Amino acid sequence: MEETSTESTGLKFVALGGLGEIGLNMAAFEYGDDIVIVDCGLMFPEPYMLGIDVVIPDIGYLIERADRIRAILLTHGHEDHIGALPYVLRDINPPIYGTALTLGFVKEKLKEFELDQKVDLRVVKPRDTVQLGSFEVEFIRVAHSIVDGCALALSCPEGVVIHTGDFKLDQTPVDGELTDLATFSRYGEKGVLALFADSTNIEREGYTLSERLVGDAFEEIFPACAGRVIVAAFSSNIHRVQQVVRAAEKSGRKVLLNGRSMIGNVQIARELGYLKIPDDILIDLKELPRLPKEQVCMITTGSQGEPRSSLIRIAMDDHKQIKLERGDTVILSSRFIPGNEKTISDLMNHLYRRGAEVIHEKVSEVHVSGHASQEELKLLHNLVKPRFFVPVHGEYRHLVKHSQLAQKVGTPEERCILAVNGDVILFAGDEACIVDQVSTGRVFVDGKGVGDVGNVVLKDRKHLSEDGMVVVIIGINQTTGEIIYGPDIVSRGFVFEDDSQEYLEEAKKVVLDTLALVTPEVMTDWNEVKLEVRRVLRRLFNKTLERRPVILPLVLEM
Amino acid sequence: MEETSTESTGLKFVALGGLGEIGLNMAAFEYGDDIVIVDCGLMFPEPYMLGIDVVIPDIGYLIERADRIRAILLTHGHEDHIGALPYVLRDINPPIYGTALTLGFVKEKLKEFELDQKVDLRVVKPRDTVQLGSFEVEFIRVAHSIVDGCALALSCPEGVVIHTGDFKLDQTPVDGELTDLATFSRYGEKGVLALFADSTNIEREGYTLSERLVGDAFEEIFPACAGRVIVAAFSSNIHRVQQVVRAAEKSGRKVLLNGRSMIGNVQIARELGYLKIPDDILIDLKELPRLPKEQVCMITTGSQGEPRSSLIRIAMDDHKQIKLERGDTVILSSRFIPGNEKTISDLMNHLYRRGAEVIHEKVSEVHVSGHASQEELKLLHNLVKPRFFVPVHGEYRHLVKHSQLAQKVGTPEERCILAVNGDVILFAGDEACIVDQVSTGRVFVDGKGVGDVGNVVLKDRKHLSEDGMVVVIIGINQTTGEIIYGPDIVSRGFVFEDDSQEYLEEAKKVVLDTLALVTPEVMTDWNEVKLEVRRVLRRLFNKTLERRPVILPLVLEM
Repeated sequence: MEETSTESTGLKFVALGGLGEIGLNMAAFEYGDDIVIVDCGLMFPEPYMLGIDVVIPDIGYLIERADRIRAILLTHGHEDHIGALPYVLRDINPPIYGTALTLGFVKEKLKEFELDQKVDLRVVKPRDTVQLGSFEVEFIRVAHSIVDGCALALSCPEGVVIHTGDFKLDQTPVDGELTDLATFSRYGEKGVLALFADSTNIEREGYTLSERLVGDAFEEIFPACAGRVIVAAFSSNIHRVQQVVRAAEKSGRKVLLNGRSMIGNVQIARELGYLKIPDDILIDLKELPRLPKEQVCMITTGSQGEPRSSLIRIAMDDHKQIKLERGDTVILSSRFIPGNEKTISDLMNHLYRRGAEVIHEKVSEVHVSGHASQEELKLLHNLVKPRFFVPVHGEYRHLVKHSQLAQKVGTPEERCILAVNGDVILFAGDEACIVDQVSTGRVFVDGKGVGDVGNVVLKDRKHLSEDGMVVVIIGINQTTGEIIYGPDIVSRGFVFEDDSQEYLEEAKKVVLDTLALVTPEVMTDWNEVKLEVRRVLRRLFNKTLERRPVILPLVLEM
Repeated sequence: MEETSTESTGLKFVALGGLGEIGLNMAAFEYGDDIVIVDCGLMFPEPYMLGIDVVIPDIGYLIERADRIRAILLTHGHEDHIGALPYVLRDINPPIYGTALTLGFVKEKLKEFELDQKVDLRVVKPRDTVQLGSFEVEFIRVAHSIVDGCALALSCPEGVVIHTGDFKLDQTPVDGELTDLATFSRYGEKGVLALFADSTNIEREGYTLSERLVGDAFEEIFPACAGRVIVAAFSSNIHRVQQVVRAAEKSGRKVLLNGRSMIGNVQIARELGYLKIPDDILIDLKELPRLPKEQVCMITTGSQGEPRSSLIRIAMDDHKQIKLERGDTVILSSRFIPGNEKTISDLMNHLYRRGAEVIHEKVSEVHVSGHASQEELKLLHNLVKPRFFVPVHGEYRHLVKHSQLAQKVGTPEERCILAVNGDVILFAGDEACIVDQVSTGRVFVDGKGVGDVGNVVLKDRKHLSEDGMVVVIIGINQTTGEIIYGPDIVSRGFVFEDDSQEYLEEAKKVVLDTLALVTPEVMTDWNEVKLEVRRVLRRLFNKTLERRPVILPLVLEM
């Protein structure tokens, strides 16, 4: 059923991703005939999503309403806010608004997908206003762990809503660009219908530390290192890179950039003027062996112990040009992302085996978060003074906690709306509530396949991963019903075949015994025979080995 | 080659597990003809060990020397110190020494494996001394997150070595049983050849908090809860259970025990007098509905979000008797074990969806560690004043860090011996060094199979988990070389077959094209044909889908 613009008056918010999960941030605001989209992020796969590369939001809802979409507004250039664009732009292609660095990163990403020539990227600056149908949108500077981040104020006849994107306050940001509290205040004074705010750090008390403290830590650590200094950080964290470069300069070290995305992002940020690196401080791999160790600083990706990163290869002494030595120092200047603790721990152990010392966020101030903690959120709520509050960007418990915080600073419980993905909130008159659920969800990208791997395939992969697979082949004469081949058994991931010939012979015998009970006359339904073969093998494997492999009986009629 | 007792004089330490890893703790001390084993622990599988249930140490070294083994000495009853016993006791069966609770837990475990009648369990008390060939062993009381833990002093003609097991200091333990610093001091004054000490918490500064603080936290939280209180903890943490019971009593709540191991361990601890629970405070599931919510406290397992635990079923509203309600409080009174953060996070989100409030170690003092932090370790080193130091119980970086700490408190670097699994340290005269490597390692237990799943099988499981499996069946007349069946393609975990019939038909065509190029005359080597079929399919799948399934071509000659 096609929706018409007259079916409802008021402002609608449609949660397409990021409400009840970390990542996959995407939302739509609708008024009258106009839809604007805020962000278009991906999510990295959770452990149960075996073999999946990335996860993107299901935008079926938007595709059906493509003609009404006026723009995609990007708050900042992190993957969980822009990463789904290459996939989503195949189906919808509205103009994309964002600041220079955000769109610089977007463009680079679209090049990989050969989409950069086909999109309409429109650069804005903080405090710029754009008119998009019934919406007037103002971009509001916020500090975050990437430069050039913005919150959004969307004004429409129903009122003004503010969406924070990801933010923190940071009173001493590296580039001096403060979160624009004056603009938030201005809207707050005029009256804000609803606030949609970042819930990522809602479990942290107090204030998030300033990025500048990380620079101070570097400037303390670098001169004390006798050997080389290797700093691992996210390549999008341009301020972090800037601070490494400054500390390197001050301690007389040259800088080697390592990792494809580090080199790429630094180049974009330098070209756009966000990063100041004198040319003569940069060196390349060829120059590395010529420099004394105490004059070297490397900035690299791979801080999460990613299996193919060059940092893990360096740590495992498996890198051609870079060998670690006793006295070298590795600084993991990033968060231990939940789920990655084990690979990071392995990375650290390997680094110590090479004789290096490792410094990380748990022992020194070499990383700070980019998200606001409780006191910062309270301040924002008090400035914006929204009529309604909708927590976004968080798992379910984060949304609950953020809603509790909003109540503490004065938004009554009934005006805190706990929505999850798929929920549609209608703001009309003085009321707001969840009025509808639309179909959303997680679309799995596996190689070139987008959405073709679903729960059945994942369940099979899980099953295969636990006890492997056993294939049973039986060739049957289709007229006489005689067995003319097999039974033969082949397995993978079940038992080590070289050592298990006898065991598999026993399994064949059990299959033969089963087949012997099936007279040719009753052999009309081969599916029944397959099921029976699977049953007896399942029983055998369970009894003898307590294993439950995927059993695939193939009865070939010839 | 059989070793004889004359090949070396001096005391040998053989690291069989736990040096360079967390868990799998097992070591052997040898003097002359006598071997004593310290602990016999398991390890829970790491993420790459797909389908593996538990990991045990390879004891090939001990099996070859079984006649010289005088005893297994157990420091305490945690799985990473006793869990491998049921497997190891199949091959060696010396007397097992431990305190009453430790052996109580061991006995329960052996019952499951029907081994409890076949072993010689010998209960000791702290400060007891036993003579084992050339070794005199004294058990030394230590505080830990399980009651009745001990360190060991092993005296032999070469000198005295002290092995701490797992310990912390805790000046106010729940049962009043302090770590026996007097005995450590006595040995320190007489002279200690070597100290082997727990490195688990070496990355933590200061002192580990007392277990008693957790009880204080419970007594503050319980009366403030309007609904039911559910405390999730490890069932072996008897003091924790005791403190929950006390807080429940004081706040007028009855106690329901939940989870098989919780019920079992509580029973053992009560029978042995380690746990005081008045009978009238315990209730069972049937009584639950009759009690007002504010009079209920439940103690349960499942704090790590284990997939089959009843706590996760309660959280997912999938438990028959126990329904959570708004106002209930769940206390996760245990560590977030590295690697489990994601399942714990999911558990918390589900609990919030049910309307419960969740309290955990990151927001309140509802858990403390059982391992000594840096200042406690320094104190121990200063009391024991060993000539040599060997860090144990830790990943590689923990061993390095502990060695650095030992140097700070006076053991010179050359007398800190950084050994890993398999290393043999010889203490002879005034010298000590690593003299040998023996074969050790991790043996995987998968169902009833012990050691039959190795790296080949795990690699297959990993491969299967990522992109599934494709089986290609081709039947060939073995005399004419004609194709008499297929090619047929069956897959699991690769693509969703219901939606992919066309795609799989295309793959069949590619196989047919390949086979067409093979004339019957050259069809002498079917292995070559199989390889070629695998090659073309691999290319096709990679090009069209960027997926790399396990491809299993079956050429059936009939």
